[in-house]
Amino acid sequence: MKAVVISSFGGPEVLELSEVPEPPVGPRDVLIEVAAAGVNRADVSQREGNYPAPKGAPEWPGLEVSGTVAALGHEVSEFAVGDEVCALLSGGGYAERVSVPVEQVLPVPSTVSLVDAAGLVEVAATVWSNVFLLADLRAGETLLVHGGSSGIGTMAIQLARARGARVAVTAGSAAKLDACRKLGAEILINYKTEDFVGRLKAEGPGAHVILDSIGGSYLERNVRALAMDGHLLNIGNLGGTPGLLNFGPLMMKRGTIHATSLRARSAAAKGAIVSSLRENVWPLIESREVKPVIFARIPLAEAAEAHRLLESSSHIGKVVLTT
Amino acid sequence: MKAVVISSFGGPEVLELSEVPEPPVGPRDVLIEVAAAGVNRADVSQREGNYPAPKGAPEWPGLEVSGTVAALGHEVSEFAVGDEVCALLSGGGYAERVSVPVEQVLPVPSTVSLVDAAGLVEVAATVWSNVFLLADLRAGETLLVHGGSSGIGTMAIQLARARGARVAVTAGSAAKLDACRKLGAEILINYKTEDFVGRLKAEGPGAHVILDSIGGSYLERNVRALAMDGHLLNIGNLGGTPGLLNFGPLMMKRGTIHATSLRARSAAAKGAIVSSLRENVWPLIESREVKPVIFARIPLAEAAEAHRLLESSSHIGKVVLTT
Repeated sequence: MKAVVISSFGGPEVLELSEVPEPPVGPRDVLIEVAAAGVNRADVSQREGNYPAPKGAPEWPGLEVSGTVAALGHEVSEFAVGDEVCALLSGGGYAERVSVPVEQVLPVPSTVSLVDAAGLVEVAATVWSNVFLLADLRAGETLLVHGGSSGIGTMAIQLARARGARVAVTAGSAAKLDACRKLGAEILINYKTEDFVGRLKAEGPGAHVILDSIGGSYLERNVRALAMDGHLLNIGNLGGTPGLLNFGPLMMKRGTIHATSLRARSAAAKGAIVSSLRENVWPLIESREVKPVIFARIPLAEAAEAHRLLESSSHIGKVVLTT
Repeated sequence: MKAVVISSFGGPEVLELSEVPEPPVGPRDVLIEVAAAGVNRADVSQREGNYPAPKGAPEWPGLEVSGTVAALGHEVSEFAVGDEVCALLSGGGYAERVSVPVEQVLPVPSTVSLVDAAGLVEVAATVWSNVFLLADLRAGETLLVHGGSSGIGTMAIQLARARGARVAVTAGSAAKLDACRKLGAEILINYKTEDFVGRLKAEGPGAHVILDSIGGSYLERNVRALAMDGHLLNIGNLGGTPGLLNFGPLMMKRGTIHATSLRARSAAAKGAIVSSLRENVWPLIESREVKPVIFARIPLAEAAEAHRLLESSSHIGKVVLTT
């Protein structure tokens, strides 16, 4: 079959459409004929050589897909051949077919197209597992999302609003902030012209939960922006640099810092998150309270273009690759 | 009544025995005739002007006492006048009497003397709430305790051992490490001559939980010493300096960093911890699996000497002040 592989570590141009072996289908696996694959920042890190595939995962990138069930392992009874599904992967989504443990597979919601469902699972799982399962954001509390117009951001805003929380976002342009506002964000901060710490403090007790992909360079300000008993969730390290952590202010707030990723977790751990998604998030998508925000649908063979787009940060929402 | 007050911020010599007003007894308060008061690092920070008393607390130091119930608020039925008790305070323990919400009061275990019980509550509450309630240390996992021979350390070693965990400690002398070994620590690291990161990695998957009072200067090494899904618990900032936090390694381990303190919590929050202590830790003290380690009993009027001792770090276990 065809897949987009990383021919060597480097820029977007190293992504190449190549012939790769068909994925093996284990007894508890679902083989998906891919309709579309979501593009994630982690794919860019993997392409650059900074985020190797975990053991047992395909070496080509892709952490989420949508598609049609093409075959089932002999122990799988939860789905049937022909079902439209989407799935959280450990890798291998940039391909015509991918095999995935059944625990990581979800039905496509009736309110979402098959292609757009490719942009749903990774962001929903990341936001749900971090903001709600780990940091336990409650109604009435404030969530601060850095990069509110990213794929993660657009999902975080909607989920937090649907659960009754107040949402603050940072973004780098008026257009991006306006997109965040339309999704339900109330506190809109252009990080190029405004200090998010001062704004959060002016608006209330600070952020009970902060969802951050920047890392080190935002650490000191994130700690200052936290409310009492607040949680700083780090899900990326775009800044790359280490940050200064001063334990005095963190202790005064009894603050917690988590750094997490989904990819290296076991199938069982991913399955627990997917199961919680299906119970808590899928109904919000069925009722149209939460929608995937898809910025671009790009053919798989043009994956390099998709990476350039993601790295330009000119997108709002998700980019998906169609087969 | 008499209390040891902080006459001005500074060295141990600023501690002065003075006349202060009798504490008011609210409807849900217990008035304790103090037998002894535990001395804590936080008292030293308060004396230096770095850890002010929370609103409503007496200004003189002392976060824990033992003694006899002298009077009860009219809504208190849990204790009787004459009962021997110990209590977790927001301050005011260095005194002849102290008034405290009933939720923060515990009976003195039958296996512990009235005076020695003064050194029990703060360390038990700190270790229990952090290592077990927050970080959920499990049997078979490894706990790393920095300063294993401190009051906190001697309690952490015993509690972790009683719950079936493996304990690693750092300390600065062979005598201190030997004391830790006798309490149940298995991995003994002299931080002056050995790198704790290398040792933890050589002994297994790293530390599932780290209990740390150093803060910034240990941060980078603590992150390296963590096991997968590990928790770094910071309960003090003796180093004073900020630390470098590199999110990459923390994320690879899905690590969590908590910075906590008990003192500023509400009476209800303290009460929940005390109630959990009574249920889970007091039986281990009654069965003598866990014992308070008391290094010195010093008269209240010589509180300055007690602080000098604590700051010299030559003690093993707790220092208490007797009235």
